[in-house]
Amino acid sequence: MEERKNQCCKLWFPDRSLQEAADSMIYLDNAATTYRKPEAVYQSIDMVNRCLSVNAGRGSYQLARIATQGLEDLRERLKKLIKGEQDTEVVFSGSATLALNQIIGGLDLCKHTKVYVSPFVHNAVARPLVNAQEKCGFQIQKLPLTVDKSHPEIDLEKTEYLFRREIPDYVFLSHVSNVTGYVLPIEKITAMAKEISKGRTKVIIDGAQGLGLIPVDYKKVPFDGYVFAGHKTLYAPFGIAGFYKRKDLKLSHFLAGGTGSDSLDTSMKKKGYEPGSPNISAIAGLYEALNFIEETRVENILAREHHLVEKLAQGLKEIDGITVYVPDSIETRSGMVSFVAEGIRSDEFGSILDEDFHIAVRTGYHCAPWIHECLGDMDYGGCVRVSVSYFTTEEEIDRFLDAVREIMEG
Amino acid sequence: MEERKNQCCKLWFPDRSLQEAADSMIYLDNAATTYRKPEAVYQSIDMVNRCLSVNAGRGSYQLARIATQGLEDLRERLKKLIKGEQDTEVVFSGSATLALNQIIGGLDLCKHTKVYVSPFVHNAVARPLVNAQEKCGFQIQKLPLTVDKSHPEIDLEKTEYLFRREIPDYVFLSHVSNVTGYVLPIEKITAMAKEISKGRTKVIIDGAQGLGLIPVDYKKVPFDGYVFAGHKTLYAPFGIAGFYKRKDLKLSHFLAGGTGSDSLDTSMKKKGYEPGSPNISAIAGLYEALNFIEETRVENILAREHHLVEKLAQGLKEIDGITVYVPDSIETRSGMVSFVAEGIRSDEFGSILDEDFHIAVRTGYHCAPWIHECLGDMDYGGCVRVSVSYFTTEEEIDRFLDAVREIMEG
Repeated sequence: MEERKNQCCKLWFPDRSLQEAADSMIYLDNAATTYRKPEAVYQSIDMVNRCLSVNAGRGSYQLARIATQGLEDLRERLKKLIKGEQDTEVVFSGSATLALNQIIGGLDLCKHTKVYVSPFVHNAVARPLVNAQEKCGFQIQKLPLTVDKSHPEIDLEKTEYLFRREIPDYVFLSHVSNVTGYVLPIEKITAMAKEISKGRTKVIIDGAQGLGLIPVDYKKVPFDGYVFAGHKTLYAPFGIAGFYKRKDLKLSHFLAGGTGSDSLDTSMKKKGYEPGSPNISAIAGLYEALNFIEETRVENILAREHHLVEKLAQGLKEIDGITVYVPDSIETRSGMVSFVAEGIRSDEFGSILDEDFHIAVRTGYHCAPWIHECLGDMDYGGCVRVSVSYFTTEEEIDRFLDAVREIMEG
Repeated sequence: MEERKNQCCKLWFPDRSLQEAADSMIYLDNAATTYRKPEAVYQSIDMVNRCLSVNAGRGSYQLARIATQGLEDLRERLKKLIKGEQDTEVVFSGSATLALNQIIGGLDLCKHTKVYVSPFVHNAVARPLVNAQEKCGFQIQKLPLTVDKSHPEIDLEKTEYLFRREIPDYVFLSHVSNVTGYVLPIEKITAMAKEISKGRTKVIIDGAQGLGLIPVDYKKVPFDGYVFAGHKTLYAPFGIAGFYKRKDLKLSHFLAGGTGSDSLDTSMKKKGYEPGSPNISAIAGLYEALNFIEETRVENILAREHHLVEKLAQGLKEIDGITVYVPDSIETRSGMVSFVAEGIRSDEFGSILDEDFHIAVRTGYHCAPWIHECLGDMDYGGCVRVSVSYFTTEEEIDRFLDAVREIMEG
């Protein structure tokens, strides 16, 4: 069997062992996907692959019932994580992108729908919205930003003015910008929209960079939809994501298929939003990841990342020629910092970090189509994003800063 | 760490160890998901989770490039598996259900579209079609069946008559029925539709129960779309599926989102059909599963399952009170048999098998909404499906048949 293992390694990576390549890397692309995960997450995935890889919610035999129970337990635990109430439900999905397609594709949008959107959104929000816009013809209004280009924030006063001038039907927010790490004031914006519209506005939040890292309290932010991504700030594997949904949010069935029940009826009505076989090993991974998050506590994870990001931001600001994009105050920061380097395109900067220092960062526009107009990093082909996780070490930050200094001193 | 592992076990299954429950089970629900997988599949998933769980197709650092290369290699290998040509492409998706939604949701359907469908289809085909029908109002014509109720087959003569009377725009076929295991004559039906329509008809095949078990040769069956499910006959984990697409099949973008490229453009045009982060560990699992399939050979896997199914069918037919649903000839059989038992509802039969014999089968309608009208198993609440894999043993079949005998003898 060892032979097979090596064979697999070789196919994916012919020159040296994958393990070696992974071990020698300083990974600062955690906003793309947190890597590494807690050891117990790896173990639970492997165990469930080997012992419980059956169809949850379908078969009536013992292992299928255990799998179903695990899935339903996870749903309840996720609800508790945000202090969700009777009026919220958890819908599982294969990815946050898919979850956002399910929501946007399921809404009743028409020419006259008034849609507001945070300019920080990822293409997982922007592209489905533009896709829907092409069909229905509604206007998309971006929320206004403050003028400081190195750390743009939502301008709440101007937002209120816009909301009062034209009451929103829908507001789409990113919880956390995946470019600057800015934590949006979702509590204030949600309250403002709900107050002005007398509760009519529906607020949908993309929390792919939020849940697990930034505390979310449904009692304080009574959103209508909140999307989460298992493989990012929740430390789970790929293949498990979903959304919290207020039960009274009307959502037609964007996806249809087998649900393991009521097979003879081909309509999706009253059949939930989860067609297809649940990915039970990814679900087990998220289940175990929640143990890690609950034991460590969201506040401590955030404090740890804030500490690392402060070190990063300070270090970068001291280097000549580096322009840092990071929120000004600690309250609006998360686990990342972006920057541009005078005279060097961002992709080139990333390549040097990779090739000369074995440091993995992400460069470019980060699938966020609108915020770069404000940042003004287009001359650099976007920015270099440095994103940490709870497992990033201070030594890794030091080595990264040394590398940037070395590059800039040429 | 051992403690954490046990903790995870306990949470999912409080009474005894999961391993023990899994080991004592005779698993005959492989049509839902093949379990077990080849050992190397488990190993490759765990290795990639630990060493390569990064964003393929996005980051430009070394590990991201390796992941991207692995993904593209897999695409090529899947193309080779069906002798695909320059005019075909492989699109990855999170599940076969999602792939079918992408196809059906992406087609240009209108009131006058002439849609034919195999009555064997799963709800992953039927429900998206009915969903689309509710919006567009086209008619869905089911293909006619032969009269023998215990092993219904597509009536090719009548099908030809219908095709000539009203030329199909689209024909949706299941490659293999997930109820009776009937392998549809996709070659003949595709040729017939293409010939009658002078190539205009688009043929979409749901191969969730096919690819990996039934040889597929694109040269012989020039379909326009063919959907595969990693976790079934391909022996891969949950979370990886997709479809083969003829490049000239026009498909609008049902899903939109980040693709890791051209971030500033919010339109999905020219951006492919795979938004969101690829599930790289599931992709590695399928990669390794293809090694198993190539080494074992599809023909040998099928011969093994035919042998087991023949034993099952013969054994069941000899038991008084059992009505067996299985195709008559070996050429149209795959890896399953279904049956009903006189005087016992199918779900009850499944419960007895589970509780008294630790045998896992699937009972009910199996998410196939239309074929039961023909089978006439509605009085039993559907049928009991017994499905094997390459790893099912003769001893397991013997023990299953003993159990059925014991139940029927009361």
